[in-house]
Amino acid sequence: MSTKQKVLLLGATGATGISILDGLLETKQFDVEVLVRPSSVEKPSVQQIKDRGVPLRVSDLNASQEELVSTLQGIGILISAIGPHDVLQQKTLVRAAKSAGIKRFIPCAFITIAPPQGTMLLRDEKEIIYNEIKRLELPYTVIDFGYWHQISFPCLPSGRVDYVVWYMRDIGRFVSRIIVDERTVNKYVYTWGDILTENEILDIVEELSGEKVKSQHKSVQEMENQLDDAQSSLSLDPTDPGKRTLVYIAQYVYSKYVRQDNQPRYANYFGYLDARELYPDFKPISFRELFTEVLQGKGKTPDGH
Amino acid sequence: MSTKQKVLLLGATGATGISILDGLLETKQFDVEVLVRPSSVEKPSVQQIKDRGVPLRVSDLNASQEELVSTLQGIGILISAIGPHDVLQQKTLVRAAKSAGIKRFIPCAFITIAPPQGTMLLRDEKEIIYNEIKRLELPYTVIDFGYWHQISFPCLPSGRVDYVVWYMRDIGRFVSRIIVDERTVNKYVYTWGDILTENEILDIVEELSGEKVKSQHKSVQEMENQLDDAQSSLSLDPTDPGKRTLVYIAQYVYSKYVRQDNQPRYANYFGYLDARELYPDFKPISFRELFTEVLQGKGKTPDGH
Repeated sequence: MSTKQKVLLLGATGATGISILDGLLETKQFDVEVLVRPSSVEKPSVQQIKDRGVPLRVSDLNASQEELVSTLQGIGILISAIGPHDVLQQKTLVRAAKSAGIKRFIPCAFITIAPPQGTMLLRDEKEIIYNEIKRLELPYTVIDFGYWHQISFPCLPSGRVDYVVWYMRDIGRFVSRIIVDERTVNKYVYTWGDILTENEILDIVEELSGEKVKSQHKSVQEMENQLDDAQSSLSLDPTDPGKRTLVYIAQYVYSKYVRQDNQPRYANYFGYLDARELYPDFKPISFRELFTEVLQGKGKTPDGH
Repeated sequence: MSTKQKVLLLGATGATGISILDGLLETKQFDVEVLVRPSSVEKPSVQQIKDRGVPLRVSDLNASQEELVSTLQGIGILISAIGPHDVLQQKTLVRAAKSAGIKRFIPCAFITIAPPQGTMLLRDEKEIIYNEIKRLELPYTVIDFGYWHQISFPCLPSGRVDYVVWYMRDIGRFVSRIIVDERTVNKYVYTWGDILTENEILDIVEELSGEKVKSQHKSVQEMENQLDDAQSSLSLDPTDPGKRTLVYIAQYVYSKYVRQDNQPRYANYFGYLDARELYPDFKPISFRELFTEVLQGKGKTPDGH
């Protein structure tokens, strides 16, 4: 019988989940299984996972606690990379995880550094789940990321980097280390690659591509207006996922550029552990390296290559 | 000119505030001033503080930001021991503290260990203030206490311990150390004296007094009913301070006895620092010592002796 740690991953087909799954499998250190909804079993993205030899556990998050607890039997570490509109659905999972004796729950965090309450709606919904975890005294680790390299570069006039889809290679590698590290139990950890200003990013992009990029600089006033507009629009139709997404995006922008939250300084203030200090031997890909790969046509494409 | 750290204390006439004031003055390490509302200046309890040579700063928390910032000029450490019904009024103070460049803000915490969100209304209002502090990246320390010895013992049939009012000697002594300790910046710290079960407390009380005490044991069901009743009553009249207080009390009881939150194990889970580990040389009074003093008539009385 395998003595590997049993890890169950929810949300394995999302951009974050794919990276986590790859990172977990790469180490060969875990018995990885994937949790999917009954309605998703036949999806090509799920079938691809199955084809890689990863067992599926099938359950709905609104199933009975009994069923959920039974679904989690034998699992040591439960990772949730649930989609942004389903964050609150994790509540049932948290309770089942407690009953099933899960050793560590990794709730869906995986966002930029930002304070709770009022700055980012998405962050606030995650906080509700963190608080449920804490109420139940369930062992956990919150893992946050910096802003992704892959959405940090502007389009080039030639259009030659437009083929790239989001793929965060290092996220899964960080997660694989963090979830078995005793130092990170009941802690917040942030992971990061480069710390660059927008001007530094532009300089790298122009230098490597040889193309002149039009500045997309927005004023604080413009970002505030964008946020106000998105929030007003959502308030008229609070359940519209599209409008909600626009608020998420406007708040990301506001938090990142106006408040300047997403920085090691602020993570440190919140008591986060720094994954780069925890794993000094691990070198994440730099923005320069990633953009070089993208220019060479080695970026991830929608068909997975 | 004095080189002592300037400390401003709000709420100095409350049970917690008195202990903090005494603790601060006792060390002779601080230039202590007290913040009072204009309407409170003439109160005997405030005059008593003035008579001890403690300067007053007078301002309303709903004064303009400009006035509040001016009131805080020159202060290094700001401690709030505001009353339970005024917790949210600290919001203006937090913002003024940020503008005034306060080096450390000690928000009104000073309660038992409990999780945020839904377990204790009083805790949740404090959390709103903690989050405002974090949003502004204001340096802070949250200091929580165990349950007070002084409200942990039952009445004796003889009535001879009924004269005692709440007076928490060690609280101020802990606070005086914590607020100048670099290890506690942007951290949560809990302080405690004894860890005792209710039965152990009863045994000590009976042994020392020689009296037989009637058990006040309540069943979980009774405590749940008490909580439900208090919450229903408050929901009919949400602004009634008396009904609010009954909810606070019922939630304290529920958190302490049913959920069993108030324990080092849970504080540790939350990442609190343990003041006893930080200051191993400091010996707080034990319950046994305190109850001995009370039996000897040395407990604090309402006229302050």
